[in-house]
Amino acid sequence: MNQDIINKIISQDYASITNKIEEFMENELKKNNSKGIILGLSGGIDSAVLTYICKRKFKEKTLALIMPDTDITPNSETEDAMKIISLTGIEHKLIDIKPIVNEYSMYLVPNEKSKGNLRARIRSNILYYYANIENYLVLGSSDKSEYLIGYFTKYGDGASDMTPIVSLYKLQVREIAKYLGIPENIISKKSSPHLWKDHEAEAELGTQYEEVDSILYCLIENGLSIQETVETTGIDKEIVEKIYNLNINSEHKRLLPQKYDIK
Amino acid sequence: MNQDIINKIISQDYASITNKIEEFMENELKKNNSKGIILGLSGGIDSAVLTYICKRKFKEKTLALIMPDTDITPNSETEDAMKIISLTGIEHKLIDIKPIVNEYSMYLVPNEKSKGNLRARIRSNILYYYANIENYLVLGSSDKSEYLIGYFTKYGDGASDMTPIVSLYKLQVREIAKYLGIPENIISKKSSPHLWKDHEAEAELGTQYEEVDSILYCLIENGLSIQETVETTGIDKEIVEKIYNLNINSEHKRLLPQKYDIK
Repeated sequence: MNQDIINKIISQDYASITNKIEEFMENELKKNNSKGIILGLSGGIDSAVLTYICKRKFKEKTLALIMPDTDITPNSETEDAMKIISLTGIEHKLIDIKPIVNEYSMYLVPNEKSKGNLRARIRSNILYYYANIENYLVLGSSDKSEYLIGYFTKYGDGASDMTPIVSLYKLQVREIAKYLGIPENIISKKSSPHLWKDHEAEAELGTQYEEVDSILYCLIENGLSIQETVETTGIDKEIVEKIYNLNINSEHKRLLPQKYDIK
Repeated sequence: MNQDIINKIISQDYASITNKIEEFMENELKKNNSKGIILGLSGGIDSAVLTYICKRKFKEKTLALIMPDTDITPNSETEDAMKIISLTGIEHKLIDIKPIVNEYSMYLVPNEKSKGNLRARIRSNILYYYANIENYLVLGSSDKSEYLIGYFTKYGDGASDMTPIVSLYKLQVREIAKYLGIPENIISKKSSPHLWKDHEAEAELGTQYEEVDSILYCLIENGLSIQETVETTGIDKEIVEKIYNLNINSEHKRLLPQKYDIK
């Protein structure tokens, strides 16, 4: 790995970025005549960063939903989510989605992977349910790394009205989290979507975010070829190709439904 | 109302349009390396048209899900859906979403409108569940009239991989339905999303699709002003303004989540 690239990625003015994200969110609220913001709070770093940002300017009009599936979500995650609530004072609801997942399962052919994605979609349904009632906008918590490799559920956590941190690589999210004063254990713990038991992002991807971000930075930001990226980063070609393919194959997740055009 | 405009809208070569829609769908399947097509079949005209199109070229690789909420969906709708299945021979599953809706309701603040949208989102969840398992693409059944006025649930029936009839106004969908040989009662019955009891599209919109389509054709297709549209169509200004506002206010439903861009 090439530390220079990592340094380039993380050397940003996080105070200024935070301000600009707040402005962006405020503009979206105005543009849509919306009364506030709703987001899912998992205990992970991305939604923690969003909650801390909401606390600064939108504290009185933010609702955070904590939605574990108590069959598979570790208790420690829900505890971290509750810790963020007590540190920020944001209004919250805690809803265990386990009985809802189980109810669906009674009518569906069993499939663990589809059930994992279903969990993300159930959470999105509940966010939109309350967003409808309150006239709130739903925040999407994808970061740039997850977004570019399609590491999210289409119409699940990918479903939102605005995505304030989708321009920040995971390594940058870790830096902005430090700037915002988020507890160290939430920043340093292993990243996980917890769609099934013991689900871990870096284990599933077969590499660490230091590599993922370096590769994406070379391939996407700087338009390098796979071979040039291998040479620049010193990362195994196999891993570079994997990330490249994840990016290409997930394109449909970043697009609107394909329309047949009569003309 | 101006019959010339309606004639202009409906005078199309529906044989050629049907062929082009099939080609489009075939290309999408190839592009995505997908093995087939899945769609929700409500008993209404839009999903009936899609099912009849699927039958022509994709009969062996189409799965139709009929998903009434037996608390609110009229029996006659499910009967019409089953009639389409027996006429086309498409593979199907019948899943009553009522117990799933009820399970959600146990954990949510009561709200009839949000619950209506929740029903559409539950259907989308189930379509994607099976799409995941089978590597199928999800068809969206919005037509141009519904799409342009935002008459669909964001991330509910609006969630799909491709929308083959989104370029056809409702009046054109009625014509293509005749061309495809869809039973007359399905073509002529009142349009309804059935998100709640006795839910009817034209009653909710306060006008008929002949007017909606004429207005959209003038405003969007021909770029006329509200006043010019009133003069050309002879429709009340109040209705023209209503359709205009529905189009403007639903823009967010036709866009991807708004991204904050770091640059």
